[in-house]
Amino acid sequence: MTRRNAFYAQSGGVTAVINASACGVIETARKHKKQIGKVFAGNNGILGALTEELIDTSKESASVIAGLRHTPSGAFGSCRYKLKSLEENEREYRRLIEVFEAHDIGYFFYNGGGDSQDTAHKVSQLGERLGYPITCIGIPKTVDNDLPFTDTCPGFGSVAKYVAISTREAALDVASMCETSTKVFILEVMGRHAGWIAAAGALAQDAAGDPPHIILLPEVPFSKQKFLAKVKTTVAKNGYCVIVVSEGTHYADGTFVADAGSKDAFGHTQLGGVAPTIAQMIKDKHGYKYHWAVADYLQRAARHIASKTDVEQAYAVGKAAVEFALAGKNSLMPVIVRTSDQPYRWKIGEAALAKVANVERKMPKSFISADGFGITAKGKRYLAPLIAGEDYPPYRNGMPAYVSLKKQLTPKKLPPFKV
Amino acid sequence: MTRRNAFYAQSGGVTAVINASACGVIETARKHKKQIGKVFAGNNGILGALTEELIDTSKESASVIAGLRHTPSGAFGSCRYKLKSLEENEREYRRLIEVFEAHDIGYFFYNGGGDSQDTAHKVSQLGERLGYPITCIGIPKTVDNDLPFTDTCPGFGSVAKYVAISTREAALDVASMCETSTKVFILEVMGRHAGWIAAAGALAQDAAGDPPHIILLPEVPFSKQKFLAKVKTTVAKNGYCVIVVSEGTHYADGTFVADAGSKDAFGHTQLGGVAPTIAQMIKDKHGYKYHWAVADYLQRAARHIASKTDVEQAYAVGKAAVEFALAGKNSLMPVIVRTSDQPYRWKIGEAALAKVANVERKMPKSFISADGFGITAKGKRYLAPLIAGEDYPPYRNGMPAYVSLKKQLTPKKLPPFKV
Repeated sequence: MTRRNAFYAQSGGVTAVINASACGVIETARKHKKQIGKVFAGNNGILGALTEELIDTSKESASVIAGLRHTPSGAFGSCRYKLKSLEENEREYRRLIEVFEAHDIGYFFYNGGGDSQDTAHKVSQLGERLGYPITCIGIPKTVDNDLPFTDTCPGFGSVAKYVAISTREAALDVASMCETSTKVFILEVMGRHAGWIAAAGALAQDAAGDPPHIILLPEVPFSKQKFLAKVKTTVAKNGYCVIVVSEGTHYADGTFVADAGSKDAFGHTQLGGVAPTIAQMIKDKHGYKYHWAVADYLQRAARHIASKTDVEQAYAVGKAAVEFALAGKNSLMPVIVRTSDQPYRWKIGEAALAKVANVERKMPKSFISADGFGITAKGKRYLAPLIAGEDYPPYRNGMPAYVSLKKQLTPKKLPPFKV
Repeated sequence: MTRRNAFYAQSGGVTAVINASACGVIETARKHKKQIGKVFAGNNGILGALTEELIDTSKESASVIAGLRHTPSGAFGSCRYKLKSLEENEREYRRLIEVFEAHDIGYFFYNGGGDSQDTAHKVSQLGERLGYPITCIGIPKTVDNDLPFTDTCPGFGSVAKYVAISTREAALDVASMCETSTKVFILEVMGRHAGWIAAAGALAQDAAGDPPHIILLPEVPFSKQKFLAKVKTTVAKNGYCVIVVSEGTHYADGTFVADAGSKDAFGHTQLGGVAPTIAQMIKDKHGYKYHWAVADYLQRAARHIASKTDVEQAYAVGKAAVEFALAGKNSLMPVIVRTSDQPYRWKIGEAALAKVANVERKMPKSFISADGFGITAKGKRYLAPLIAGEDYPPYRNGMPAYVSLKKQLTPKKLPPFKV
């Protein structure tokens, strides 16, 4: 087997554990120096390949690479940049192949969601067509948990853990004060199309009736009337009400609840998200004192409370990607296969990129309770193991000691390219 | 010394570590059974004393009481209920004394902020006057860090740690994506009158120029023009800008930035907080893509990442309160005395309740940088040790195993009282 270089890139929204996948790729590649020369990483994702900004990871020490395992965000930079179809923009795909050829890159590891798997697949096809065969392996990543064929997506478990813990903690806070103060607490979480993240709030429940009392999912059309009635009965029964709401919660006609507010006096569209919108609804109807939080990036960056299971799986798919490539496999994505719920057991499987690309996995109906405001026992059984275990980063002076890279670029060999 | 019972109550906004103080009180009292009989805790704070809802903590096991040390929120219930002045409402103070007398309570431990210390002081004075001498010891607690005579307030260190870590994590996220996505990230934190909590964001900085690039404090009148200019230069220099903003940030005329927006088309006052308001300002002026988070209760409930120093101090002031009482001291509050910055050393001191009551400690001017957007080295030297150390709660199935109490009330002996 000829020794070839590898290219690794991070794509789309970053997570608490995408760098653990990078760590898995680089550490595994370093163990196979006869087959893999250098691992280049795209500076700001695939843009780095187009602009020939290739970070030479061989310049990074073993301890810094090991530190990627406990460092959140995209250490090499990520980007929101979707390559168009081959027909529309063959120029960019050709450029990728040129850059790969110029740097003797025989392996392409693309760490992202559905779009990225699609890109990896197309690069593989075009490479073949142009007579520059390149091994393309996708590495799954997305907090949205919406990739098909994998039991879960690395990145999701840690967000789920953050949301479940934050919900439990805030619920204790509200419960202890509700007699004279806040009666309704709302936590807004990510999930524009699917409610996986909000559903994880249900893991804060130990027993029936525990908070969160209401979970609002994009899968269930929002009924203001039903919602407000549920809030009222919940406060009457418990003295308080805790709500976890997906940013993508929408009315039956598809209008996002967050967008359904209005413009302010200056004609600005509403500033807030869905949490303040439903808080105001509750205030207007019931007069309850409320508080709301919007977790935003905190939830997907919260490496300090990452799920150990998630970290291990993120590393494992990075490692498996390299092992697939070395085994001569191509156009595949390693996936997580669940072999047992209790005790939780999983192994690495594989899915063809051609099948993965652009298929979105929705939350099954069987995970959503009959009234639409909660998660079933089946749903919780699926979610529970994904948050299992803690994997604390090291600390220095009370702060997590996240690593940063030198990001030394390898000298360019090609003329510039306009992106 | 006659054996008497004790009464403990939690007051005002709860924290990640107020139960650690409760733990310190109860565990210490249990070690002195010859002097202290039962420890009753107010159900929902001082309200429980007025309504004679006294939780009998002797019914709680040693392991549950020990578990309070790692459980956030107010385990016995807290309340926002400020007793009026003695002149205006002597009736309530007299009721407290009646309830104390009915249950042979000789020690009153009141765990709260400035108002609570004031109440404890008045109860002590009135008891004396009515011929029912009662030992009143205040126990400091407030995330706002605004009590005088103490180097810091238990509860603050853990919020500070949460804010610093969240800022570091979100900043890494934004930095990795800013080339093609979000350029400005805003984290809104608590602090209506003082900027201590927002200031803690500065602990995310390891070197000059590190995020957060801008901290907005209530101590510095908000100038839209200066602010927007600083955002622009920051994005130009770093590619992105991270902002931590106090909810209490206001214009020179005292108007809160969060309130200065407008009403929406339905005449509602604006839903959002200060974060979405300044996000919109930035968007309008510079067009940058932004994200914002509002930490709200998550920050003060985040026991999962509590500061070890804070937990130890919270426990220590609870323990010291009992020891003060047993030593015959009265109308005092144990305080934290810093004896050294580096290495950080502290001990327990004492302050007279008469002096503590209703004095608010502001952040010193010397802690705020010349341009008003940051924290000086001196300020960081003060803040840094307060977040030192981690004190992780135990976990079960991936979730923190917080304890809950039986909260068994002791039988009432008095006629009802209308609060």
